[in-house]
Amino acid sequence: MSDCIFCKIAEGEIPAKIVFQDNHVVAFEDINPQAPVHVIIIPRKHIPTISDLTEDDQELVGYMHLVANKIAAKNGLTEDGFRLVTNCKKASGQEVFHIHTHFLGGREFGWPPG
Amino acid sequence: MSDCIFCKIAEGEIPAKIVFQDNHVVAFEDINPQAPVHVIIIPRKHIPTISDLTEDDQELVGYMHLVANKIAAKNGLTEDGFRLVTNCKKASGQEVFHIHTHFLGGREFGWPPG
Repeated sequence: MSDCIFCKIAEGEIPAKIVFQDNHVVAFEDINPQAPVHVIIIPRKHIPTISDLTEDDQELVGYMHLVANKIAAKNGLTEDGFRLVTNCKKASGQEVFHIHTHFLGGREFGWPPG
Repeated sequence: MSDCIFCKIAEGEIPAKIVFQDNHVVAFEDINPQAPVHVIIIPRKHIPTISDLTEDDQELVGYMHLVANKIAAKNGLTEDGFRLVTNCKKASGQEVFHIHTHFLGGREFGWPPG
């Protein structure tokens, strides 16, 4: 956990453009943005992958979606909408093993999603 | 709500290849699959978009992620992983206005996600 880059961002040890934070969730700009608004939403709790979620985490994961709505509102995207993407493990391209949801907005998104 | 195709699937009024269901969540195969395993996970509760979520829905949305893990396990994808995608409104391509998460697995996924 001490080597987790997202834990370090959440604790302020590694700089990031934080767009939202509270006791449970931190959201910051993706350094490799794929859309005009591309924010990574993480829980402060270190959970490596979606596979590691337990019943105790349900409310937290749901709350990350309410945070997505706050980010949409801040960026004037509530009306147009946005895409949320969560990668789990290798096939999907998960690179940091601390669960995170990509919030993407500000353009049209194609299908398939990658 | 009576015109909602996903409510009708959840109630068995419209046929679908159901892969999981319980009192809270229904999951069924996407009729237009974008991956070897492409399942749509919905809550039974009719919530039009992510924007409409309230604090009362947090646990339900988190639970949809635990269902994703069940679907991964059933399809032997726990090790390789999967991608979850939730579209919110027009820019993202949301077509059915009943929240749903796309579970995609069984191949490698590119970036950007659409």
